[in-house]
Amino acid sequence: MKFTIKRSIFVDHLNNVQRAISSRTTIPILTGIKIAVLDSGIILTGSDSTISIEIYISKEDESNQLSIAETGSIVLPSRFLGDIVKKLPEDQLTLEVQDNLQTVIRSGESVFNLNGTAGSEYPTLPEIDADSTYVLPGHLFKRVVNHTIISVSNQQIRPLFTGVHFILADEQLKAVSTDSHRLSQRIVPLTMPEESRGKALEINIPGQTLTELTRLVDDNEDIEMMVTDNQVLFKIDNVYLYSRLLEGNYPDTDRLLSLDYNTKIKVDAQELVHAVERALILSHQGKNNVVKLSLSQEEAILSGHSSEIGYVKERLSLLSFEGDDLEISFNPDYLREALRSFGGQDVVVRFVNPTHSFILTPSEDEDEFNMVQLITPIRTPGN
Amino acid sequence: MKFTIKRSIFVDHLNNVQRAISSRTTIPILTGIKIAVLDSGIILTGSDSTISIEIYISKEDESNQLSIAETGSIVLPSRFLGDIVKKLPEDQLTLEVQDNLQTVIRSGESVFNLNGTAGSEYPTLPEIDADSTYVLPGHLFKRVVNHTIISVSNQQIRPLFTGVHFILADEQLKAVSTDSHRLSQRIVPLTMPEESRGKALEINIPGQTLTELTRLVDDNEDIEMMVTDNQVLFKIDNVYLYSRLLEGNYPDTDRLLSLDYNTKIKVDAQELVHAVERALILSHQGKNNVVKLSLSQEEAILSGHSSEIGYVKERLSLLSFEGDDLEISFNPDYLREALRSFGGQDVVVRFVNPTHSFILTPSEDEDEFNMVQLITPIRTPGN
Repeated sequence: MKFTIKRSIFVDHLNNVQRAISSRTTIPILTGIKIAVLDSGIILTGSDSTISIEIYISKEDESNQLSIAETGSIVLPSRFLGDIVKKLPEDQLTLEVQDNLQTVIRSGESVFNLNGTAGSEYPTLPEIDADSTYVLPGHLFKRVVNHTIISVSNQQIRPLFTGVHFILADEQLKAVSTDSHRLSQRIVPLTMPEESRGKALEINIPGQTLTELTRLVDDNEDIEMMVTDNQVLFKIDNVYLYSRLLEGNYPDTDRLLSLDYNTKIKVDAQELVHAVERALILSHQGKNNVVKLSLSQEEAILSGHSSEIGYVKERLSLLSFEGDDLEISFNPDYLREALRSFGGQDVVVRFVNPTHSFILTPSEDEDEFNMVQLITPIRTPGN
Repeated sequence: MKFTIKRSIFVDHLNNVQRAISSRTTIPILTGIKIAVLDSGIILTGSDSTISIEIYISKEDESNQLSIAETGSIVLPSRFLGDIVKKLPEDQLTLEVQDNLQTVIRSGESVFNLNGTAGSEYPTLPEIDADSTYVLPGHLFKRVVNHTIISVSNQQIRPLFTGVHFILADEQLKAVSTDSHRLSQRIVPLTMPEESRGKALEINIPGQTLTELTRLVDDNEDIEMMVTDNQVLFKIDNVYLYSRLLEGNYPDTDRLLSLDYNTKIKVDAQELVHAVERALILSHQGKNNVVKLSLSQEEAILSGHSSEIGYVKERLSLLSFEGDDLEISFNPDYLREALRSFGGQDVVVRFVNPTHSFILTPSEDEDEFNMVQLITPIRTPGN
């Protein structure tokens, strides 16, 4: 096996494949990158047990400056390969595998000799044989993920909650996540593939998979999605990301969402974020990381305290206030992340009482559940 | 005590004072910043046991927008004070200490209430009563420190070697450092103060002190230095840095420096740095972190290897070669740091034999010891 390629292109693709590779893997070969050289191009593969990324580098694309002298495949240590290729002196490199799996990488006056592993020892990726291909614009997909990823749990005790629940039906995509302290929901329109009209697809995609996808896709690219029983394949141009799905029946979360309220406020999300960020300087030092919001017709006060350091009071200027006076306590980190997920929009917050979860919706679409953040309060001795 | 000040100015000064404060201190009050308010301005003080930084903010300087309502002093928790002031909403803040040491910081609609400690409990700084003031231009001081700091030891076993040895005499400053594996020396001209002409001053300044000083001084500022028995005070504009000195007699290092050689090469420092950086990708994985340099009239090869990963050979293009063939092994990190300390200059390297230390000097000044890096080789089974 032997090929020559433009180094800067190779570096970029190696970086993307490396996203799938975990240094904590217990399967030694998965610390490597598989390089398969075909007549028409090169396939790079990296994987941990959840995600696999495959990138196809075509000979036809002249910008790759790819010339293939001999086909074959090899697995090379991922981290070193990346470090070496990044630092080679010239903008072209030749990679050649010798009889004993010794791999020689040449660039200018540098010659690296790496111990490789046979490509045939690398696990094969699952075959995705799906009926339908869903197409999602990159910018929309990113917005869905950024809105819901904050409520994904990092506790492995309930694996289902480490993912986002996707429902694709009725020409829309509904994404829901919850860690049982908070919940995020985002609904966007979706052009369903012809074969899937009238059907509903429900899957649970690992949060890690979604995070990697948002890093791989550009706003103006499309993501193609194909689903089988327990696997999903996302295709972005020449990049293929395979992921397992999380098994289990996601709980019905619709019953948690209600427009009922006893207190309703409208706020400038940015201004409230800044106040929360000041309050949590002190609340992070307290035992429970809790801040208190006191709302009345006269004033709105956000306060935080730490018995060691001191306390803070922030007077908020609300855009509107409606309903009963209220004192409610909660984790300020949750509110900060929820507010940030709305970007610069004004936000409406509906409260029922100090022990009932409260919901945030954008001011422009406040009576729909297209974009919701829900937060469960913390009961304090006073409530 | 009460004053109002421009927030952005206060943030900058707090950041500088915080450089002296260690979160690992065992003396609780030293986790705080002392704020002393006089009629004419404010003094901020931070300290660990080695370094103290004092900054004077004058009322006369109108850019400070400082107005003083009441004098006094207080100690506030350094980290929180910094975080809070950085995030306050307006560009002006008022700080007021109440009867019970409760300190109120107001800015816009934010009100912080911090538990303070009486300023009188803060340790007093040493008095520096020196005869002479040495003046060093900032850019020159930085060059001296950057050249010598690399050979400062981080091993507390020999405290003297954790500092740089300064000799101020005969209208020059000579700085030497060594960790016993390598040695750095830099000599620069110095305008001696009148009172010190004909005398010599030898002091050992902790490496940490010098590093902080390079961060505090701008190229076009002067550093004033005053020395007593076991303390040194550096003054840069309105910033005062106090440091203890390291005690002990620094060994005579002149005998280690010699222009004798059996092999001499001239190299482009940048090119060699890049080759070393590639070689150490592999040597860092080996047991001893060692690379080998093979020099002859015909070729110069730098090689590194790791039994697990593989090996690398770099063919170097020397600017000149003189003397005997040589094979010598050494720590590539030392060579990289030494080469970098010369900036973009061509460098001359003189070798005696594979077990004798070798020295680097700039090509333009190769026969002087004004700018020297010395590296001890590593004996390998072959040598």
